[in-house]
Amino acid sequence: MPTKGVNTILIVGELINATRSAVKEAILNQNKEFIQDLARRQAEAGADYIDVNVATGNADQEPADMEWAVEAVQEMTDRPLAIDSTNPEAMEVGLQKHKNGKPLLNSVSAEPGRLEPFLNLAQKYGTFLVALPIKDSGIPSRAEERIEVCKLIAQEAAQRGIKAEDIYFDPLVLPLGVDTKNPPTTLETISQVKSEIPGANTLVGLSNVSYGLPQRKLLNQIFLALCIQVGLDAALLDPTDKRTMAVLRATEALLGKDEMCMNYLRAYRKGLLGD
Amino acid sequence: MPTKGVNTILIVGELINATRSAVKEAILNQNKEFIQDLARRQAEAGADYIDVNVATGNADQEPADMEWAVEAVQEMTDRPLAIDSTNPEAMEVGLQKHKNGKPLLNSVSAEPGRLEPFLNLAQKYGTFLVALPIKDSGIPSRAEERIEVCKLIAQEAAQRGIKAEDIYFDPLVLPLGVDTKNPPTTLETISQVKSEIPGANTLVGLSNVSYGLPQRKLLNQIFLALCIQVGLDAALLDPTDKRTMAVLRATEALLGKDEMCMNYLRAYRKGLLGD
Repeated sequence: MPTKGVNTILIVGELINATRSAVKEAILNQNKEFIQDLARRQAEAGADYIDVNVATGNADQEPADMEWAVEAVQEMTDRPLAIDSTNPEAMEVGLQKHKNGKPLLNSVSAEPGRLEPFLNLAQKYGTFLVALPIKDSGIPSRAEERIEVCKLIAQEAAQRGIKAEDIYFDPLVLPLGVDTKNPPTTLETISQVKSEIPGANTLVGLSNVSYGLPQRKLLNQIFLALCIQVGLDAALLDPTDKRTMAVLRATEALLGKDEMCMNYLRAYRKGLLGD
Repeated sequence: MPTKGVNTILIVGELINATRSAVKEAILNQNKEFIQDLARRQAEAGADYIDVNVATGNADQEPADMEWAVEAVQEMTDRPLAIDSTNPEAMEVGLQKHKNGKPLLNSVSAEPGRLEPFLNLAQKYGTFLVALPIKDSGIPSRAEERIEVCKLIAQEAAQRGIKAEDIYFDPLVLPLGVDTKNPPTTLETISQVKSEIPGANTLVGLSNVSYGLPQRKLLNQIFLALCIQVGLDAALLDPTDKRTMAVLRATEALLGKDEMCMNYLRAYRKGLLGD
């Protein structure tokens, strides 16, 4: 596990992502101030890692954009970064420019072209990595199938000397509104990763779970609590959302992960527990 | 299990309780309108049962107050009642006057005078019952010890023909702020009741968990979600608190207990999901 701040759950700040239109615009316009402000606010709110995704749709431009964004963010904060790309060239540029702590490679999967090149980069640069149990045939619907893909990735990683402790398996979060079995499958996958791949970590991105339903933040927050209870280690989320962080702190405390409730009380005194 | 409304978790409305000063005053002044308003609002908000506790501190008066309150509430709603007393005479009066559905006797324990007389009343009136794993020596600190007391109560009940399915074991909720092991012990007790006493139900009162800490409602709500995930069947809570009900609905949906998210969406359309 990386060195963490006060968190028992590793927090990866998700806001610098080119799928968000304001971020895309800032990348296209080289608006450094906008990107740096997002980095600063997430670090101040408690992010352990800052995710950087600059995929605006122009693949040729992505390596240069990644270099620009990684350098911009590192001028503002010394938090380590999650280099978030499906483009091996952009990934490598991001890892080359990374300078504070151990980077998080986001992500590998078992799809063609997404496993070997990215595992090789993880090995070369000594990173943590996020691993998605997706095969060329798509996302396995059952937890047991997802675990098989996780094990396959863990084996391939081990052959390169990458330990299970360096891998954050993403159990995959699909929308509740599409199939009510989706969230239970994610919870079951977290639980099985923890029991069947000794030492491995788990990480979820929350927001997919609520896609298409009202009161999305409520669903995301409660799902975070439920995931932590079954063994979640890390979450990709918006740390500037006070209510999300309040739910995280409350969950940690209620599960006995916050000695003397120190983190909960400190967050309260700082006004970070939301309303 | 009793017939429930749309809930998969049985909701017992907690507001009519003489430990609340406004309720105590209403009982002392025979303010029927105040009590009936609390009953109506809880029923409208989705309570399956309405708890009635009239212990103002004058034991001699409690049976008469119970009769008055039970009749007042039943003029307003046809929801069944949880007759909530440590006084056998008040309990019996409440059960005698109960007329809609199967009452919930709240509660028995393994303390002297709290087991036999109340189990006899549960048998005589054919009630559901809440059972607390408390002995004359106090509250057992470990889950395993609480389970032993639950089993003892279940055996005594079985000797009177009362089935495990009619019992709601309260795993006991002690404050997080006093000992961070308290909430995990409650969660472990719920889990063990479900696995070790086949057919038995579990019920928690939430509010103790947050005693002495800031943002109490947040802690209570997240604890509700965590309890449901480990198998909780029923909760004593304030159903007129929209955020609490929103968390309940979200949790049910995320755990696959709400087919097609119908209850969640219905609650949203009724404006019941809070902010």
